[in-house]
Amino acid sequence: MREDVNEKCAVVGIFGHQEASKLAYFSLHALQHRGQEAAGISSSDGVKLHTIKKRGLVMRVFDEAKLKTLSGSSAIGHTRYSTAGDDSILDAQPVFARYDLGEMAIVHNGNLTNADEVRKALIKKGAIFQTYMDTENLIHLIAKSEKAKLIDRIIDAVHRIEGAFSLVFLSRTKMFAMRDRHGFRPLSLGRLPSGGYIVASETCAFDLVGATYIRDVEPGELLIFEKDKEPISIKVFEPTPKHCIFEYVYFARPDSSVFGQSVYQTRKNMGKELAHVSPVEADLVIPVPDGGVPSAIGYAQESGIPYEMGIMRNHYIGRTFIEPTQEMRDLKVKMKLSPMIDIIKGKRVIVIDDSIVRGTTSRRIIRMLKEAGASEVHMRVSSPPTTDPCFYGVDTPDKEHLIAANKTIDEICKYIEADSLAYLDEASLLRSVNATKDNYCTACFTGKYIV
Amino acid sequence: MREDVNEKCAVVGIFGHQEASKLAYFSLHALQHRGQEAAGISSSDGVKLHTIKKRGLVMRVFDEAKLKTLSGSSAIGHTRYSTAGDDSILDAQPVFARYDLGEMAIVHNGNLTNADEVRKALIKKGAIFQTYMDTENLIHLIAKSEKAKLIDRIIDAVHRIEGAFSLVFLSRTKMFAMRDRHGFRPLSLGRLPSGGYIVASETCAFDLVGATYIRDVEPGELLIFEKDKEPISIKVFEPTPKHCIFEYVYFARPDSSVFGQSVYQTRKNMGKELAHVSPVEADLVIPVPDGGVPSAIGYAQESGIPYEMGIMRNHYIGRTFIEPTQEMRDLKVKMKLSPMIDIIKGKRVIVIDDSIVRGTTSRRIIRMLKEAGASEVHMRVSSPPTTDPCFYGVDTPDKEHLIAANKTIDEICKYIEADSLAYLDEASLLRSVNATKDNYCTACFTGKYIV
Amino acid sequence: MREDVNEKCAVVGIFGHQEASKLAYFSLHALQHRGQEAAGISSSDGVKLHTIKKRGLVMRVFDEAKLKTLSGSSAIGHTRYSTAGDDSILDAQPVFARYDLGEMAIVHNGNLTNADEVRKALIKKGAIFQTYMDTENLIHLIAKSEKAKLIDRIIDAVHRIEGAFSLVFLSRTKMFAMRDRHGFRPLSLGRLPSGGYIVASETCAFDLVGATYIRDVEPGELLIFEKDKEPISIKVFEPTPKHCIFEYVYFARPDSSVFGQSVYQTRKNMGKELAHVSPVEADLVIPVPDGGVPSAIGYAQESGIPYEMGIMRNHYIGRTFIEPTQEMRDLKVKMKLSPMIDIIKGKRVIVIDDSIVRGTTSRRIIRMLKEAGASEVHMRVSSPPTTDPCFYGVDTPDKEHLIAANKTIDEICKYIEADSLAYLDEASLLRSVNATKDNYCTACFTGKYIV
Amino acid sequence: MREDVNEKCAVVGIFGHQEASKLAYFSLHALQHRGQEAAGISSSDGVKLHTIKKRGLVMRVFDEAKLKTLSGSSAIGHTRYSTAGDDSILDAQPVFARYDLGEMAIVHNGNLTNADEVRKALIKKGAIFQTYMDTENLIHLIAKSEKAKLIDRIIDAVHRIEGAFSLVFLSRTKMFAMRDRHGFRPLSLGRLPSGGYIVASETCAFDLVGATYIRDVEPGELLIFEKDKEPISIKVFEPTPKHCIFEYVYFARPDSSVFGQSVYQTRKNMGKELAHVSPVEADLVIPVPDGGVPSAIGYAQESGIPYEMGIMRNHYIGRTFIEPTQEMRDLKVKMKLSPMIDIIKGKRVIVIDDSIVRGTTSRRIIRMLKEAGASEVHMRVSSPPTTDPCFYGVDTPDKEHLIAANKTIDEICKYIEADSLAYLDEASLLRSVNATKDNYCTACFTGKYIV
Repeated sequence: MREDVNEKCAVVGIFGHQEASKLAYFSLHALQHRGQEAAGISSSDGVKLHTIKKRGLVMRVFDEAKLKTLSGSSAIGHTRYSTAGDDSILDAQPVFARYDLGEMAIVHNGNLTNADEVRKALIKKGAIFQTYMDTENLIHLIAKSEKAKLIDRIIDAVHRIEGAFSLVFLSRTKMFAMRDRHGFRPLSLGRLPSGGYIVASETCAFDLVGATYIRDVEPGELLIFEKDKEPISIKVFEPTPKHCIFEYVYFARPDSSVFGQSVYQTRKNMGKELAHVSPVEADLVIPVPDGGVPSAIGYAQESGIPYEMGIMRNHYIGRTFIEPTQEMRDLKVKMKLSPMIDIIKGKRVIVIDDSIVRGTTSRRIIRMLKEAGASEVHMRVSSPPTTDPCFYGVDTPDKEHLIAANKTIDEICKYIEADSLAYLDEASLLRSVNATKDNYCTACFTGKYIV
Repeated sequence: MREDVNEKCAVVGIFGHQEASKLAYFSLHALQHRGQEAAGISSSDGVKLHTIKKRGLVMRVFDEAKLKTLSGSSAIGHTRYSTAGDDSILDAQPVFARYDLGEMAIVHNGNLTNADEVRKALIKKGAIFQTYMDTENLIHLIAKSEKAKLIDRIIDAVHRIEGAFSLVFLSRTKMFAMRDRHGFRPLSLGRLPSGGYIVASETCAFDLVGATYIRDVEPGELLIFEKDKEPISIKVFEPTPKHCIFEYVYFARPDSSVFGQSVYQTRKNMGKELAHVSPVEADLVIPVPDGGVPSAIGYAQESGIPYEMGIMRNHYIGRTFIEPTQEMRDLKVKMKLSPMIDIIKGKRVIVIDDSIVRGTTSRRIIRMLKEAGASEVHMRVSSPPTTDPCFYGVDTPDKEHLIAANKTIDEICKYIEADSLAYLDEASLLRSVNATKDNYCTACFTGKYIV
Repeated sequence: MREDVNEKCAVVGIFGHQEASKLAYFSLHALQHRGQEAAGISSSDGVKLHTIKKRGLVMRVFDEAKLKTLSGSSAIGHTRYSTAGDDSILDAQPVFARYDLGEMAIVHNGNLTNADEVRKALIKKGAIFQTYMDTENLIHLIAKSEKAKLIDRIIDAVHRIEGAFSLVFLSRTKMFAMRDRHGFRPLSLGRLPSGGYIVASETCAFDLVGATYIRDVEPGELLIFEKDKEPISIKVFEPTPKHCIFEYVYFARPDSSVFGQSVYQTRKNMGKELAHVSPVEADLVIPVPDGGVPSAIGYAQESGIPYEMGIMRNHYIGRTFIEPTQEMRDLKVKMKLSPMIDIIKGKRVIVIDDSIVRGTTSRRIIRMLKEAGASEVHMRVSSPPTTDPCFYGVDTPDKEHLIAANKTIDEICKYIEADSLAYLDEASLLRSVNATKDNYCTACFTGKYIV
Repeated sequence: MREDVNEKCAVVGIFGHQEASKLAYFSLHALQHRGQEAAGISSSDGVKLHTIKKRGLVMRVFDEAKLKTLSGSSAIGHTRYSTAGDDSILDAQPVFARYDLGEMAIVHNGNLTNADEVRKALIKKGAIFQTYMDTENLIHLIAKSEKAKLIDRIIDAVHRIEGAFSLVFLSRTKMFAMRDRHGFRPLSLGRLPSGGYIVASETCAFDLVGATYIRDVEPGELLIFEKDKEPISIKVFEPTPKHCIFEYVYFARPDSSVFGQSVYQTRKNMGKELAHVSPVEADLVIPVPDGGVPSAIGYAQESGIPYEMGIMRNHYIGRTFIEPTQEMRDLKVKMKLSPMIDIIKGKRVIVIDDSIVRGTTSRRIIRMLKEAGASEVHMRVSSPPTTDPCFYGVDTPDKEHLIAANKTIDEICKYIEADSLAYLDEASLLRSVNATKDNYCTACFTGKYIV
C-alpha cells in the first residue's frame, strides 16, 4: 500500500541465447513491481544494436513483432518509475549511443549523487545532454575516456561517478554488469538452462525464465560477458557493502532473494522481532496487504495470536476519475482495501504494515477497521520510523512530508488514530536480516548517509 | 486461480439517491470479480430510462460524461461473464424494452432452466428474440401478461420461469427486486447513508458506497421500491432455500456476507474441518492464492502446522501473446503464481485449494512446488470432488472435462502428481456453513439437482 | 461540406459467394459516405446467422478474424448515420431476430412514416421494442404475420408500413431485396464476377468488388435470391416513382449511378442549367469542394468562364478539441477548406455549391474568399432553396433552422454576404435529371409531400 | 497519388505570442501533408524549454492538456515523414539539448550531404550520438563551437554543414531561422495578427492562424527573433538559389506560395505548357487527383478540350488489412480512386499526372480507365522523366526503381499500357515557374547535382 516510496527501476541483461530479447521481456515482466511507467529493451545482433522503449507496462510496450526486430543473442532491459509530468519518452532507458568505438546501450538502477557536478564538467567540455537522466553522464564519460578499449573506458567512467549504480552495458559483441562499491541496489547473476547468462535486479526474474541463481554480482565488481567464454570478473573497487535495507522492508518481491537472502524470510524475521520488542494483548494479527503479510505471519507465529487476512486487497484496481459522492469517505483506500467485517467486529486487532511514510494511508486504514467494529487497533510497523529521504535510487517524499521526521511516535499514534503504535528498532531490524556486521544502509531511518 | 468455473454475473439496484448511477458504478466495481466481460447501467429520471452497456471492465465502460447521461434517482447495473466469441454487445445487460406500460429494464443473475421451452412458446405466439440471453424471456412474459399493473405482471412472469434468478427491475418510477423460491443466487438489501436503498449480489458493494446491510432479499420474495415509501414485501413463492454452496467455496468475495454469513468465516471453517478429516504430517500449510487463503489459515490454526504464504500471486497479470521459449515450461501458471523457494525447499508442504476442476492447474502448481524443492506436496481441497455441472447460473465445463467425474481420488492424486490428496466431505462442508437443515444446493458435488 | 443534411444509411446484400461477408465489407467501405457512425454485417452459413455490429467506420469495426466468424455464402451489411448521443450500440443494424420460422436479419435505408402508429399497435398486442429504430417494426410484423412462408410474411409486413424503405432481408437460406412503391431511396442489382449477386444502395459498391450493374430493383418490387436459381421478381406494389432528387444534388457518390443515371452527369447538367438561368459576369467559376465540383464544371463549360479549383479541401481533417486563439476566426471551416489566394485575388468569382441549408457555412466560405481578395463573390446553388424537412430517410434540421424557410433569397444573399445569389429552379433541376414525367420527390424544395 | 516520393518534413516557428504552442499546433496541422509519421513541439517560457514529440498525426499527438504544458511565448514545431521500421521515437524532432549556454531545441527540413563525415569527426572528438538524425550534428557543432554567443556559434555550425537545410532554433529567450545558401527547401516569414512572428515551410500555415506573408527567409540568411525587437537579418552565405522544383511539381499544397510564387498557378502553367508541347486529339482532359488537378485545368484551358473530374478520390481511405478476393484486382488503387464510368465510356481521354516514379500506379490507373470503357488513354505528365534520386531532403526510391532511369519513354508508354505518353520538357517546366535564370534544382530530372 505504499504510494509514496518507490523503487526507481529494474535492470536485466541476457547473454548467449537465441531469443535474448524475449527472455528480457519476460524478466522485465517479473520485475514490473519496480517500475510501471516505461519499459525498454536493447538487443545486439553482433553488428548493430536495436532499441525499443516506450511509456507503459512491459506487456503493452512489446508484442511479437517488436521482439522480432530486437534480434540477436544478447539484450538488456529496463522498467522505470517516473515522476515526470509530460509525455516525453526521452527519459526511458536503455540509453543508446553511437560513439568512437561503435554503439552501446546502458541500463541503470540507482542514483548518482555527483551527477550535476559531472554533467556540468562534461558540458563545459562541449558535451550536450539530450535527456534529464543522470545515466546520460555515463555514456559521455565512456565516449570521452582516452582509453583504447571499452572495458578500460567503463572502468574509467565508473571512477568518475558516485552514488548507487547497478548497471548493465551492451556493446555489439559483449555485455558488462557492474555494481557500485557499496552494492546499494541488488544485482544477481544466473545461468540460463541452455547455457547463457542472465543478470537481474531480483531473482524472481530467474524463476520465470527457468534460470538458476549463481551468485550476486559483488559490490565493486565488473563482470564481462563474451561469446563462448565464462564471465570474467574484475574487482574495480574494494567492496564496502551498504545494501539498501528497504529492499527487504518493502521493495523486493517476497519470492526473490536479494543480497543473498530470501526476502520473505527476512520479512518474517522482522515480524518475529516485532512481536518480541512490542508485544500487545490482542485477539488477531492482520497484515496490511500485500507488504505486511510475511511480517504479520512472523508476528503471529511468535506471539501465538491468531493470524487472519482481516483486510482484503481488490484485484480490479485502477484509476477512476469519477468523483465519489459526499457520503463516500476514504474512497481511495476503499477501492483497494476492504475489511473482513465479521472477523474484525468486536476484536482487538494488531495491524502490521512495513512502514509509515506520510501517515495518511495508515490513518485511513485504521478508521476503516474501527468502522468495521474493531474494539482496539494496535499498529505495529516492521521497520524503524522513516525520518530521512533516500539519495541512492529510491523515490521518497521530502523530509517535510515524512511524518516521523516531524512528529514523535506518540504524536503519530494520535494522528493515525491507533490505540497503540510501535516500530521495529534498528538493531532488531539488522538482526532480522542477519547483519553480522554493519553492511547495510539504514540512512532512511537514521540520516547517516555514506559520504 | 479458477479459470474454469465462473460466476455468471452480478446485479445491483439503487433507489432514491440523486446520483443513483454513480452509486451503481461504484457498486459494480466492487462486484467486478463476478464478471469482467461487459458492464451496463440503466437509470430512470422519472420520465425516461437511459441505458449504457458495453464490453469491458466497469472502469473502462463508464466515465464522468456517461454517468451524467444516466441521470435520475434510481439505477440498476450488471457485470457479466461471457463465453460468447464474437464482438456482439447484444448479450450485455440491462435488457431494455418499451412495451404497453412504458419502459423497463432488467438485470438478472442466474440461469432459467426452462428458458428454451418458454422461448419456444413465446415465439409460437409471435414474439421475436433479439439476443441469446434467457433474460429476454422475462420482458416478453411481462409484456404479454394480461394483468393491468406491472407488479402483477412481474408476479405472472416469474410464475412462468424456473431455475435460478436474482432479478432487479427498473420502471420509470419504481424498482423491483426478486429472488427465486430456492434463493440459489444471493441478493442483499441495504440502506444508503442518505436514506435510499441498495440491493446487490454481495454486501461488499455496500461497504464501498457506505451503505449498511439490512437483510437478504428472501427466497421467493418480491420487494417493491417506491418514492417516499418503505419497500413493500410480497411473498410470491413459499421459500424452499437451496443456496449455492459454491458461493462460499469460491465465488463470493471473502469480505462479503452472503446468505447471511461471512464468507471468510465459512471458508476458515472449511479449512478447520479439513484439518480434522484429512490430517497429514507436514512442515507447512500454504494456500493457493487468493481462493485458498482463508481455508489454509483455518487448516493451520486447527492443525497447529505453521501457515506460510508459500506461493505468491503476481499483480501485474495480463494476457501476453508472446510465445515462451522452449525452456520455459508452465508459463501460464508462472506468470500468475510463483513459489517462495526459500520457504518451501526441503519442506513437506500441505497446499490448500478451494476446488479442483480439470486438474491441469493443480498439476502445474504441484510441479512448481516440487521444482522449488518441496520434499512432499499434500493437496487438500476445501470442498468435495466437483463431479457435476451447474444449471443454476454458474459456468462450468462439461462433465467430461470435470476430472472428478472421470477419475477416482487416487487417480486424480496421481494425475496432479501430489504425494497425497484429500477433499472435504459433503457433511463437513455443510457443517462449515452452519447448515442446520438441508437448505443448500450441493448438486455440483452430488448430481442431485432440484427438480 | 454539408454537415447539416445527411443520408441516413447504406445497405448491401451479397448472395452466392464463398466470401460473402468480405464482399459486404468492401462494399460498405465504398458506401461509407452514406453513414459513418456504425457498421454491421450479418452472414448466413446455411444453418445459423452471425452478426457483428459496432460503432465506428467500416475499416475499424471489422478485421480479418471478425470477417472469418461471419462465415457463409450470403451476407447483408449496413452503415449508419446517427444523432444518438449515448454510446448505445442498440441502434446499429442489421437487426437480428429469432422467431417462429427461425432466424432473420434486416438492413434498412429509409424512414417509415407510420412507424409510431404501427409500433403502438404492436405494443398493444404484447410486442416489446428493444431499440429506437423504426426498422424493429418490420421484424415484429414478419414474426406476427399468420402466413406460413417467409416470403408471404414479408409481403404482409411491407403492406403495413408506409414511407421510404430500401430493404435487404437475410434468412438462413435466402436473401430478399425490396423497395417501397415510390422508390424513394436507391437500390441496384449487380452480378458478381463469379456468378453470385449483389444489391447495394449505390453502384460505386459494384465497381470496388468487380460486379457489373444489371438494373435497379424496381419501386414496389421484391427480389428473392435462392441457391442455384435466378432471382425471382414479385411486383408487390404498383410502382409510382418518387425518387429522392437530393441523391443527385448531394448524397450519392459522383461515380455512382442511381435511379438509372450517372450522378456526375446529372450534376454537370445542373451546372449547365444554372449557367442558363442565372448567368453573371465574372472571371472565374469555382466549386465548394467536393460537392460543387461537377456542377461548377458544367457551369464553366456552359458559360465559357474559366473553371478553377479556387478552394482546396484539406485531407487531414479530423476533430480537434483545441480551442482556437482569439485571432483565429472561422477555424472550423478553415481546417477543412482554404482559398487559393493567388487565383482569387482581385477576381470576380462565381462559387458553386449544391445547396444552402443553414447558411452559416456559406457565409464563412464567402468571408474567406473576400479575405483572400475576391473583388466580387456570386453564389450559385445547383438546387432550389431548401425550405422543408425530409421524412423519407434524410436527416435534415427542423424547418426553423432552414434559412430558405425563413428568409427571402435577397435576405439570404445579405446574410451570407454574397454580391449576388441565385438558385436553380425546380423545372431546371428536373430537366437536369431528365425527369420526363413527375417521378421525383422534391418535397424538400416544395413542401409537397406524398401523402 | 504519389506513394513513392515524399517530402521529408515541415518546420514552423512562432515568436511573441501568448499561446505560441497552440499556434505551432495549428500550423503543423496545415503542414501535415509534408509528414505524417511523427510530430513535435518545443516551447520556451523564458526559463526552460518544454518538449513533447510522439509518433502520429499532429491532431493525435497533442491535446489541450499537453499544449498547456508547452507554455511560453515562443515555440517551434516539426512534422516528420519516416521510413524507420521500429517504434523508436528517438528520431522525432525537435532535437533538444542542454549545453554550456543553457538549453536549445532545433527543427530541420532538408538533408545534410556531409553528415557522415561531420559525425565521424565529432565522434572522434568524443561526441556521442543518440539518434540516427543528421540534425543531431548541429547541436554538437553549436555546443562545441568556441564562440561565446549562441548567434556566433550557429554561424560557426552552419559553415560546417553542407546540403539542404531550412532550420528553426529555439533558445530560452530567442528564436533563429536559417536557410542554406541554395534555398533548396522553402521557408517563409509572416506576421501574426497580434504582432508576433511566424516562420513556416509553406504559407498555408499562415492562412490558418491568420498571419500575413512578409517575405521568404532568403537563401543564406539567418533571422534572429528577440523580444520587443524587429527580426535582425544576417547574410551568412552569399545566396546562390537552387530551389527544389519538385515543390511546385508535387510537394507543396496548391494554396501555398513557395519561393515567392503561387503553387497552384505554377501547376496550371505546367498544364498549359504541356498542352503546347504535347497536344493530342481527345474528348476529355482528366486529372489524377489531387496532384494533377491544377495542371489538368491548365491543359484543358489551353487545348480547349473539356475538363472533367473523370477519376474520384475516396475520402475514407485508410489501410485495410483484409485480403481481397481473387476476383478483386488492383484493389489498392481502387480503394483510393474510382472512375466516372459514364463520363469516360467510349471517350478518348487525356490523363494528367504530376510525375511517374515507378510506373506501377500509372499502369493501374490506365487499366482502370480502360475497364471503365475509355477508347483511348493518353498520359501527359507535367514534369520531365524522373531519372535520378534526391539528396536534398526528399525521400525517393533508388535509381534502379525509377522507371524513367531504366526505360525509354516508348517503353514506359508500353509498360503503363497507355495509347500515348508525353512528359513536360525541362525548359517548359522552368518557364512554367518563371525561372528567368538558372535558380532551380532539377537534379531529379537531369542528374546534375550541385557539388
